[in-house]
Amino acid sequence: MLMDVAILEDGRVVAVTLQDGGRYRFHAIWLRDNAGDPGTRAAGNGQRLLTLSDIPPETRVTEARFKNRQLELTFQPEGRAIDFDCGWLAAHAYDRPAPASAGWTCPEIETWGSSLAANIPRADFHEVKEDRTALARWLAAIRRFGFAKLKGGPVKPGALLDVAALFGYVRETNYGRYFEVRSEVKPSNLAYTSLGLQAHTDNPYRDPVPTLQILYCLENSAAGGENMVVDGFRAVERLRQENARWFELLSGYCARFEYAGSPGVRLRARRPLIELAPDGELLAVRFNNRSAAAITDVPFDQMADYYAAYRRLGEIIDDPAMEVTFKLAPGECFLVDNTRVLHARKGYSGTGSRWLQGCYADKDGLLSTLAAIEAEAEAGHAELQEARL
Amino acid sequence: MLMDVAILEDGRVVAVTLQDGGRYRFHAIWLRDNAGDPGTRAAGNGQRLLTLSDIPPETRVTEARFKNRQLELTFQPEGRAIDFDCGWLAAHAYDRPAPASAGWTCPEIETWGSSLAANIPRADFHEVKEDRTALARWLAAIRRFGFAKLKGGPVKPGALLDVAALFGYVRETNYGRYFEVRSEVKPSNLAYTSLGLQAHTDNPYRDPVPTLQILYCLENSAAGGENMVVDGFRAVERLRQENARWFELLSGYCARFEYAGSPGVRLRARRPLIELAPDGELLAVRFNNRSAAAITDVPFDQMADYYAAYRRLGEIIDDPAMEVTFKLAPGECFLVDNTRVLHARKGYSGTGSRWLQGCYADKDGLLSTLAAIEAEAEAGHAELQEARL
Repeated sequence: MLMDVAILEDGRVVAVTLQDGGRYRFHAIWLRDNAGDPGTRAAGNGQRLLTLSDIPPETRVTEARFKNRQLELTFQPEGRAIDFDCGWLAAHAYDRPAPASAGWTCPEIETWGSSLAANIPRADFHEVKEDRTALARWLAAIRRFGFAKLKGGPVKPGALLDVAALFGYVRETNYGRYFEVRSEVKPSNLAYTSLGLQAHTDNPYRDPVPTLQILYCLENSAAGGENMVVDGFRAVERLRQENARWFELLSGYCARFEYAGSPGVRLRARRPLIELAPDGELLAVRFNNRSAAAITDVPFDQMADYYAAYRRLGEIIDDPAMEVTFKLAPGECFLVDNTRVLHARKGYSGTGSRWLQGCYADKDGLLSTLAAIEAEAEAGHAELQEARL
Repeated sequence: MLMDVAILEDGRVVAVTLQDGGRYRFHAIWLRDNAGDPGTRAAGNGQRLLTLSDIPPETRVTEARFKNRQLELTFQPEGRAIDFDCGWLAAHAYDRPAPASAGWTCPEIETWGSSLAANIPRADFHEVKEDRTALARWLAAIRRFGFAKLKGGPVKPGALLDVAALFGYVRETNYGRYFEVRSEVKPSNLAYTSLGLQAHTDNPYRDPVPTLQILYCLENSAAGGENMVVDGFRAVERLRQENARWFELLSGYCARFEYAGSPGVRLRARRPLIELAPDGELLAVRFNNRSAAAITDVPFDQMADYYAAYRRLGEIIDDPAMEVTFKLAPGECFLVDNTRVLHARKGYSGTGSRWLQGCYADKDGLLSTLAAIEAEAEAGHAELQEARL
C-alpha cells in the first residue's frame, strides 16, 4: 500500500507515497499527537492519555522505515519510535483539496423528491428487532434518506418507546417522554388539533433541537390525516441552484423561534434556517411557520431579500414535486431526521378517529448503533478472509 | 413611547420615531408576518396560523395611525387593519448596526477567571426546591457564569435526578440516565479511574452534545479528587486577544471526536473547537484531549498553525489564573453548561473513597424554566404597578 516515504522540512513533515501514486504530507506534530501506541492511547477504551502540552512543540521525525504494513517513525526530542498503520494513514490523509462550495453533504446522504414515494424506505418491526443485519439496513436508510417507515409493530400505547430502544435513547422534553397527537379541546399546540400543518421541522425553538422524531399510529380511521415528508436538504439544494444569494442569506443570518404555549414553558432559540459547518457542510434545516418568532438579526438593508428567500424556500417545500405522502395504519410508524426532513399532515375530520403518539430521540445514538454493527460486520468479514487465506 | 410614523417607499417600509429620538424602519412584509392579531396568531398558544405564502408578496402599508399605545397599520391588498404594540416594535427593531466582531456573547453572559473562586455561585438544595425566586436566582447564575454549585442535598444514589427535575429533563445516553464516577478495574472510560483529567467538555463526540452536566458527590474522603472548572468562553476570548488568526483557525475548521470504549458504541462527531453562529456569536467550546480523533479537515498548509493555536488554547485552559477549584462534600453537586465551562478533576489515591454520580441534561429546559419564572415575576410586578395607579 505504501511505496515511499520522505522526511521533509528538517523533520517537521513526512511525505508518504501510496501504491496508487497519491502522495500525502503529514506534519510531525500531527503524527505524534495521533499515535496509537499504548503510551499514547489507553489499551482498553482507546482514549488519548496525553494532552498536547505533553508533546514538545519542536517535535520532528528523524527516521522513517517500513516494517510489514507499518511505517515506523522516530520522534525527537522524545526519542520514541512509533508504528503507524499504512491503511490508517491513507484513510486519514488531510493533504487534499478543500471541500466544494457551501451546502455540500457527505457521501452517505442522498437527497430525494416525490419519486421516492414508489420506494419508501421501510422495514418490519419484528425483523429489525430480531436481526441486527436488518436493523443496520433500516438505520442505514435513515442515514441516507433522513426518514423511514416501520410496519408491523404492536398497536399499544407506548410502543414507540420500543422503536427508540432499537437504536438509542428518548429525548424527554416538556412534552413528556412521549406525547399524544390527537385533537384536543384546548390545544397547547396546533399539533393537537385537526388542522393541516405545513411541512416543518419540530421544536426549532429548542436548542439543541431533538435530532430524531418518531410518529407512531394507534388509530387512523378519520378521513384525511395523511402524513407527508419533504427532504429539507433537497429543498435548500434547489434554493441554492435557483439563487445562490438567497441560500447565503438564509444560512448567513439567524432566525428566531419561540414557544410559550404551556404554563411554565418559554422556549426560545436563535439559529439560521439553513445551518452550515464552518467549511460549508449542510448540517441542518429549521423551518416551522407556527413557532417562527420575529426575525431581528437580519440588517435592514438585507431584510427584503431575506424575506424573498424565505418565501421561495417555503414555495419549494410546498411544491408537490418534493413530497412523499402516506397514511399510517395502526402499528405503523415513521422516523424522521429532524435536522433534515420536514413532516406535515393533512387536515382531517368527519367520522372515525386519529391517534398518533410521538417522541423525540437523538441521531448520535442511531449513528453509533449503526456504526457499531457495521464495524462488527467488517471485523467478521476480515476474520473470514483470514481463515480463507 | 412612539413620536412619529412615516410611510416610505410606496408603502413597502414604515419608519417609526421613538420618544428617545431613535428612528427605526420596518418592512411591510415583516410587519404583516409578525402581526399578533387573532387571525394571525392562535389565541391560546400564540402559534402562527399563517404561512408566508398566505401573505401577498406585494404587501404594502397604506395607512398608519396611533391609537393609545398602539400603532394601527392598514395592509393592502388584504385590506386589513392590524394593531402593533409600540413597546413590542421598539423591542424588535432590526434597523440597527450589525453585531461586533466574531466571538461576541450576549449580555446575560459574564466570563470569569480564578477570582470567581471567592464568590462561587451557589445555592441550597432545599431552598431552590421550595422557593421559585431562589430557584430563578440559581438558574440565572448558571446562565451568567455557566456553572454553579448546589449544597445541602440528600446523600443518596440518584439524588442528582432530583436536581435535574428542578429545571428540566435528563438526557439519557449510552452511559445511562446517570452514571457512576468512581475507580473501576476495567474502565470503559478514563473518567472511571483515579487519574487526573485535564479540563474538558464532556462528550464532544456526541451530536448534539449534552448541553448541561450535573456531578453529584456521595463520598469524598480520598486524598485529592478536587474538582476544577474553567470558563471556556474566557479562554477563547484570551486566545482571540492574543492572536486573532488562531481564533479564526479554531472556529473556521472542524475537529473530530470519537468514542468507542464500550461494546455496541461508536460515537463520532465533526465539529469545530470554537463554534460560532453565522454572525459570530460565540455558541460553544469543545475541548477534550481523551476523545479527540485525528483532525483531517484542516488543509495541509494551515495545519501547523492550527496545531499552534490548539496548543495555545490548551495552555490557556491549563493556566491557574483560569481555574476555580473546590472539593465537593457528600450531598453537594455542581452543574456546568457543557457548551461553555470545562471541568477537570485532580488525581486521587490513598485511603478513603470517592464516589460521584453524573448525568446530562439540556439547557433549553433550564433557560425555559428561568424565562417562565421571570415572565411570571414581571407580570406580577406589572399587576402591582397597575393596582398602585
